[in-house]
Amino acid sequence: MIKRRKTITVNAGPVKIGSSSPIVVQSMTKVPTVDIARCVRQVNKLARAGCRLVRIAVPTCADTAAFAKIVQKVSVPLIADVHFSPSRAIEAIEAGAAKIRLNPGNIKDPKSIHRIIDAAKIHKTAIRIGVNEASIRNLKSRDIPAQKRTAFVLKEMKKYVALFERRSFTQLVLSAKSSDCLRTIEINRRIAKLFGYPIHLGLTHAGLPEDAQIPSAVTLGTLLAEGIGDTIRVSAAANPLVETQIAKQVLIALGLYEPAEPRLEMIVCPTCARAQIDITRLARRVKKNLPDINKPLRIAVMGCIVNGPGEAADADLALCAAKNKAYVYRKGRRIAIVPETKIVPELLKQLKNL
Amino acid sequence: MIKRRKTITVNAGPVKIGSSSPIVVQSMTKVPTVDIARCVRQVNKLARAGCRLVRIAVPTCADTAAFAKIVQKVSVPLIADVHFSPSRAIEAIEAGAAKIRLNPGNIKDPKSIHRIIDAAKIHKTAIRIGVNEASIRNLKSRDIPAQKRTAFVLKEMKKYVALFERRSFTQLVLSAKSSDCLRTIEINRRIAKLFGYPIHLGLTHAGLPEDAQIPSAVTLGTLLAEGIGDTIRVSAAANPLVETQIAKQVLIALGLYEPAEPRLEMIVCPTCARAQIDITRLARRVKKNLPDINKPLRIAVMGCIVNGPGEAADADLALCAAKNKAYVYRKGRRIAIVPETKIVPELLKQLKNL
Repeated sequence: MIKRRKTITVNAGPVKIGSSSPIVVQSMTKVPTVDIARCVRQVNKLARAGCRLVRIAVPTCADTAAFAKIVQKVSVPLIADVHFSPSRAIEAIEAGAAKIRLNPGNIKDPKSIHRIIDAAKIHKTAIRIGVNEASIRNLKSRDIPAQKRTAFVLKEMKKYVALFERRSFTQLVLSAKSSDCLRTIEINRRIAKLFGYPIHLGLTHAGLPEDAQIPSAVTLGTLLAEGIGDTIRVSAAANPLVETQIAKQVLIALGLYEPAEPRLEMIVCPTCARAQIDITRLARRVKKNLPDINKPLRIAVMGCIVNGPGEAADADLALCAAKNKAYVYRKGRRIAIVPETKIVPELLKQLKNL
Repeated sequence: MIKRRKTITVNAGPVKIGSSSPIVVQSMTKVPTVDIARCVRQVNKLARAGCRLVRIAVPTCADTAAFAKIVQKVSVPLIADVHFSPSRAIEAIEAGAAKIRLNPGNIKDPKSIHRIIDAAKIHKTAIRIGVNEASIRNLKSRDIPAQKRTAFVLKEMKKYVALFERRSFTQLVLSAKSSDCLRTIEINRRIAKLFGYPIHLGLTHAGLPEDAQIPSAVTLGTLLAEGIGDTIRVSAAANPLVETQIAKQVLIALGLYEPAEPRLEMIVCPTCARAQIDITRLARRVKKNLPDINKPLRIAVMGCIVNGPGEAADADLALCAAKNKAYVYRKGRRIAIVPETKIVPELLKQLKNL
């Protein structure tokens, strides 16, 4: 239902990024890159959790050396995150990075950028131009108004893109991040209008997961609903599996994620004074007792007759609570009335029958 | 920065809903309405947490009788949630509801609706026309495609609005909810175009909080970023304080919430292989040790020099970690280098100095 913005297609190894390709979830490793075994384990965990690309920081040449070994041992294409050093970029490209992330503002010499571009061409490596508001020297004052910040980031982005285009390099993904939701939304809307390259979305420095998830969902959700965004990374000061989980939830909400395995969906009414059974507790018990079913089933736990029968009609199995009992529905048809204590066993029994 | 959609202003008692008024957070009580003392406690807790309106279900006449007493004892205007019974609506209006929520589809007789409208006029009570997809009889089949569902909900809404307008009643708030994010976004965009009334936003039956918050943030965030939405309620199978917290986080992310008390904001880098200190743990310790400061301060906890100094410049206090130590910044100026064990005490000391 969402009309994606048209872009060119960028190849990060076998992973395609851009308009007609599914939105790519990515995250970043958070263990020392030189600890190869740990790093490989984290990459593979992220791949199993749904990341189709994983990024690894390579600040030293020991890191790029480790990166070269990690590339060989993992199940997904890797992105090397490079700052300051052109040598790290070239080492990562030669080590087999499917994509590198560069902030050209951190690399002073244009000639070094040319060397990186030439290496990327030879090795068919994609490049993300990643501008972070906080890394722009001229914006390092809190007194600069939002409009001016956005204009400045955009000006930097134009300059960098021109640098790559002049050398006929177009395997580019663009990103502009800020820790401010509105500025991130605004700058990405403008980048989407100005350029034909895929966009990497993220809200940066968003905080601990409980603080980061709502702002990230709002920012990424708003842009994705407008068709903007081709690969996403949720930032949270947490295990990267948590980031991946949030990113997937955002995509699923917007119908933009095709899970590898079909998933069970649970609808629960928020309850109100009408509910005569503790619905939250009941929903928790149902959730806890659900076997690992990889079927696209929809289960509804409802508190009363206002919306209960309606959601039941749209569900494979539904409970509609009343006083000390619940009505059980299968595909909209009422099939049983059970006392409160028997609700969960009855649901599990019916689940087996489906 | 968000340009709100223009609407008429609806008065729910002293609370104004509509284009030029701040977006109103609301939630719903989840204790028996007849348990007056508990209900009053929950309403007042919600008011302190930021709800400017609280809704209470009144399914029986014992509930409307309790509602009449609750209205007198609480610090915010109340909304009565009415289904099926016109008598409950009129009783709630006479009891002093600032607003009632009706699903006209649940009240068969148009004459009953006229009686409700006349009572609302006399008592200056606002009315929300709340259509839930799950409550529409004709949509109680999972096989109906999204487009047809949206068209049908819209048709129902038009019919109901006409019913009120024919009787010259315009103190209306409109809502159309679904448990599907995309359908909720689409239907509200269309309602926003068709009508000049304020819109109540919500994603219904969204589930347990961990399942509900991301889809709610995506759906409400997307609409609010487009300027749509004048009052919001997050639905979650949880304590309504949790709902309120999520709703506030969504508004804060978009710069749409003016907290009664200024709040401390914490920026934390997501960390990567570059970080030489466990930033997540450090951020947790900082957060836990922060005294209750009601100042609009911004604190940054950063893992390395890539974005550290940039975020530090924009923060009142910042930590930028290095190997076994951290650089401490005050308003962008580096003021100390402290060993890892002294980071939190130093931060608290500096916080006092601010």
